[in-house]
Amino acid sequence: MTSSQPAETRTRGRSTQTATLAEIAREAGVSAPTVSKVLNGRADVAPATRSRVEELLRAHGYRRRRAEATRSPLIDLVFHELESAWAMEVIRGVENVARDAGLSVVLSESAGRLTPGRTWADQVAARRPHGVILVLSGLDESGRALLTSRSIPFVVMDPAGDPGTDVPSIGATNWQGGLAATRHLLELGHTRIGAVSGPSQMMCSRARVDGYRAALETGGLPVDPGLIMTGDFHHETGYRQGLALLRRPDRPTAVFAGNDLQALGLYEAARELGLRIPEDLSVVGFDDLPVARWVGPPLTTVRQPLTEMAEAAARLVLDLGKGEHAAAAATRVELATSLVVRSSTGAPPAGG
Amino acid sequence: MTSSQPAETRTRGRSTQTATLAEIAREAGVSAPTVSKVLNGRADVAPATRSRVEELLRAHGYRRRRAEATRSPLIDLVFHELESAWAMEVIRGVENVARDAGLSVVLSESAGRLTPGRTWADQVAARRPHGVILVLSGLDESGRALLTSRSIPFVVMDPAGDPGTDVPSIGATNWQGGLAATRHLLELGHTRIGAVSGPSQMMCSRARVDGYRAALETGGLPVDPGLIMTGDFHHETGYRQGLALLRRPDRPTAVFAGNDLQALGLYEAARELGLRIPEDLSVVGFDDLPVARWVGPPLTTVRQPLTEMAEAAARLVLDLGKGEHAAAAATRVELATSLVVRSSTGAPPAGG
Repeated sequence: MTSSQPAETRTRGRSTQTATLAEIAREAGVSAPTVSKVLNGRADVAPATRSRVEELLRAHGYRRRRAEATRSPLIDLVFHELESAWAMEVIRGVENVARDAGLSVVLSESAGRLTPGRTWADQVAARRPHGVILVLSGLDESGRALLTSRSIPFVVMDPAGDPGTDVPSIGATNWQGGLAATRHLLELGHTRIGAVSGPSQMMCSRARVDGYRAALETGGLPVDPGLIMTGDFHHETGYRQGLALLRRPDRPTAVFAGNDLQALGLYEAARELGLRIPEDLSVVGFDDLPVARWVGPPLTTVRQPLTEMAEAAARLVLDLGKGEHAAAAATRVELATSLVVRSSTGAPPAGG
Repeated sequence: MTSSQPAETRTRGRSTQTATLAEIAREAGVSAPTVSKVLNGRADVAPATRSRVEELLRAHGYRRRRAEATRSPLIDLVFHELESAWAMEVIRGVENVARDAGLSVVLSESAGRLTPGRTWADQVAARRPHGVILVLSGLDESGRALLTSRSIPFVVMDPAGDPGTDVPSIGATNWQGGLAATRHLLELGHTRIGAVSGPSQMMCSRARVDGYRAALETGGLPVDPGLIMTGDFHHETGYRQGLALLRRPDRPTAVFAGNDLQALGLYEAARELGLRIPEDLSVVGFDDLPVARWVGPPLTTVRQPLTEMAEAAARLVLDLGKGEHAAAAATRVELATSLVVRSSTGAPPAGG
């Protein structure tokens, strides 16, 4: 069998079909119902048989036809981790769109691994949702092939790694946000500005710090690598890296915290060292979680429209399932971030 | 047909069965497959027919037999609202148990109504989860009958209203928590202690304020109704009711805030009025959300083991589905709360 196809299969579905289910079965040396079982995520297929069938499905770029008819009224939403208040903003956005479409949301966590495991992909194949939204959580090659062969569309929100140009994704203008946060501090008169970044393997945190660097360089200030610390988007790291930054004899008078939770960690470090915010230290966060308004002093931060981003991701994945946005495999949508000035930023101290 | 039952049906399943599917069909004047369709939540049944069948299912206390065999690998988790950071703690607990059991979690919101709507119940009946966990969200009589007739077990977590003695539920020792919070303030020497309660229709918030009253009365202090304000568990209300309390000429020197978000609202009200915490005002929260540790000063609060409560609810609902805890219809489990003393409480001001 080659990748050329009989005319008869070419006309059956709208998607490019390189082999029928019967042809896959013949090539794998199994019955057509066995291939169906694999496609339906059924457990009663020997692992070796399943691997062989999956391999052929992938090699032929098989796509299930008429997938719409057999879909469950579900959308899958997968998080890298459910630790953060961040996640709730995203859940709410997906719920909004799902409710309007009469769908329910299945929530999973890839439990600290950046790629959901094989078991998860099998479960998804078995329950046949209308689509999958991956949040900060990429899909490996085999997971992607598995969803594609079942015609289950997927969208990546704010990708942790480079999602690849063939994966539709929704993000925010992280670079612009880092630029705006740092320019705000420059305009207040700060000249020693530190940063605590998120994890370096996440594109969003790299982009924020690159925006910070661009603001300094275009502002005519040198970038001091000693003032850039690496975090993991958690409060505890903001606190520890904050202490390290603020204990330096040449401590910065302002810090771009990378996200709101790290900013709160910086607050704690400043309290511990007896530094007042903003009199002794200015702090800018990123995200604009509800808590940013509630802390004392209320946090100046870069608003990321998380709920709107999640709504956009949910709408995109449903459109993909209807065959709209056929060219959307290359879609990358970035929603705008915006600086929200509150009370944690001010002029540098006289001696600073 | 009466509620007496033929011996033949009595022996078929473990549950009490008062009528067979065929008998329900005959009485409703429809075919047995039509009754099946209603049980499976299929849309292709006339509304009047469906109502008649549902009414008979309820009247006969019909319970689907062998429900285990046809269940989807899902647990339904329903929130009254997804606004709060509170919800994330609960989601994490249910995810923990679901993952170990090989199940996925379907998340819904009853969108501000205290009882999930009919559409939701139909969706649940159609997807046949292993069980349903309702968080601060009761089920009305017809929703309860619908789940019961499909043999879908359910558990209520921290009920908003009185769940009824026949509904298994998981809660925390709210009354003990209110008592401990207020006794802590009494021991510090406060004699004018205010309270901002949660919504009065929620049993958990009534119990907390009752614990507050009991501490005052057993401490020999009068309960001043003017110092008890009603809130809704949101930050904004803590702020507004906090302003009202703190602007009184005889303002309290300490406030039991009802929950952590209202405590943060009180923080903001105190800042606005130039009152220092804890020097001028002591504040105690309830929940111990992650943010309680992060605010300045870190919040003294009553820890409610939300994740453990959610785990207990998920385990209970799975046990009910296996026919274990057969007598659990009357189960009410309360996990212990505990006072966590941080820096928002201290002795009253000298003049206070």
